[in-house]
Amino acid sequence: MTDQLSTTDAILAEISFDPAGLVPAIAQQHDTGEVLMVAWMNADAVRETLFTGQVCYWSRSRQALWRKGESSGQTQQLVEARIDCDGDTLLLLVDQTGVACHTGRRTCFYRAVRDGKLVTISEPAVDPADLYGG
Amino acid sequence: MTDQLSTTDAILAEISFDPAGLVPAIAQQHDTGEVLMVAWMNADAVRETLFTGQVCYWSRSRQALWRKGESSGQTQQLVEARIDCDGDTLLLLVDQTGVACHTGRRTCFYRAVRDGKLVTISEPAVDPADLYGG
Repeated sequence: MTDQLSTTDAILAEISFDPAGLVPAIAQQHDTGEVLMVAWMNADAVRETLFTGQVCYWSRSRQALWRKGESSGQTQQLVEARIDCDGDTLLLLVDQTGVACHTGRRTCFYRAVRDGKLVTISEPAVDPADLYGG
Repeated sequence: MTDQLSTTDAILAEISFDPAGLVPAIAQQHDTGEVLMVAWMNADAVRETLFTGQVCYWSRSRQALWRKGESSGQTQQLVEARIDCDGDTLLLLVDQTGVACHTGRRTCFYRAVRDGKLVTISEPAVDPADLYGG
């Protein structure tokens, strides 16, 4: 336990948190490569995610740890955490249960510029009312 | 030209730029799904990227438009631009020429947490000295 915490702290030391103590994290489905969402993590969220293997973000609106899927069941199991060259962005390879987006879509990136217009390219797979904002 | 500019402005209106007028953009190789890098764009960078089809960021360190690959030749051709549900992150599907990272690696995300340690998982494909910081 002590060893695990200290190696996690060594990893945290490589992350350049912004002045608010946050770092953006990209969640990518590990096998398909689909980019699912981007959210923020503070040191506690990183620590919890590495320790439990379940992705936990920091909710800027609620100012609280956001255990992804805790209320909705749409959890993200961590497959691998990566960090970029300057340490200011994380890439989380995950196994997404259900959908990542609060709109009920698999990915938050469901709008694309095509023929000069912003169009919706995927529809909800789950009724957002069933997600409880989780 | 006028039409193209006005539709671009309609797209810009959907982007939630931060207080500094910036939005993070993820570059992803369009066919392999590899996440290459994350950088920032301001409205001018978005406009130029959509207009030219060559990815242009905003360099926070240089406080100037950063035409990716202009000096290094490691350009990113835009395949499709996407935006997330709350409009505060862009996902750029690109065709990366050469390498995205200034270290000479294909991707900036070349360090991963494995067995509780941060390890390097890919080596440079290009000598960084040949990239001119571009």
